[in-house]
Amino acid sequence: MTFDPSTLVYNESGLIPAIAQDEGSGEVLMMAWMNAEAVRRTLQTRRVTYWSRSRQAFWVKGESSGHVQELVDFRVDCDRDCVLVIVRQTGPACHTNRRSCFYTAVRDGEEVELMSPEA
Amino acid sequence: MTFDPSTLVYNESGLIPAIAQDEGSGEVLMMAWMNAEAVRRTLQTRRVTYWSRSRQAFWVKGESSGHVQELVDFRVDCDRDCVLVIVRQTGPACHTNRRSCFYTAVRDGEEVELMSPEA
Repeated sequence: MTFDPSTLVYNESGLIPAIAQDEGSGEVLMMAWMNAEAVRRTLQTRRVTYWSRSRQAFWVKGESSGHVQELVDFRVDCDRDCVLVIVRQTGPACHTNRRSCFYTAVRDGEEVELMSPEA
Repeated sequence: MTFDPSTLVYNESGLIPAIAQDEGSGEVLMMAWMNAEAVRRTLQTRRVTYWSRSRQAFWVKGESSGHVQELVDFRVDCDRDCVLVIVRQTGPACHTNRRSCFYTAVRDGEEVELMSPEA
């Protein structure tokens, strides 16, 4: 079946959550949002492109930092209201310069930092 | 630092996206939503508990199907507006009886089914 980005289920702001996972390590890197046009651009350019809610603009991941995400595979979930992008990540994915945005764990009720910013 | 669920950033409906990842395979299994009380219950009971938007009720994953998620690690992202639960999944995570909800890929513009329902 031909994929049509308009068949995904977007929220009231026209956005769908997009989870980025590292192709090699399987690590979950980040979660951000896409609109239908960001989905289209991601598939067409193979550069993962989100919609920045704070800037209200397309956000080609790594455009300014160089920490781009090359699309390896694009997955849709059963309810079509979430997507998973498998990516080849250049540099750290997180704006704090950590490999992943999920660097804080809650263990025994305490917040623990799991990784440091890269040099 | 002691973790307080109220310090997470919830959306206008009081919900935060929660990504579930399989401890063993690293596979991303599903994405659902939690409110602050679901976060509390998940950490306290070690049984992953979501908030069902359709039923407007707590959803102890696997309560009826037996396909429970035992919490292995609870992670928070840099913006504190998304959580990642590393889980020990019993049975398939998806209500379609597939291992993961992300069983559809978009390849060369076509939707491709990557896995079948388990027996």
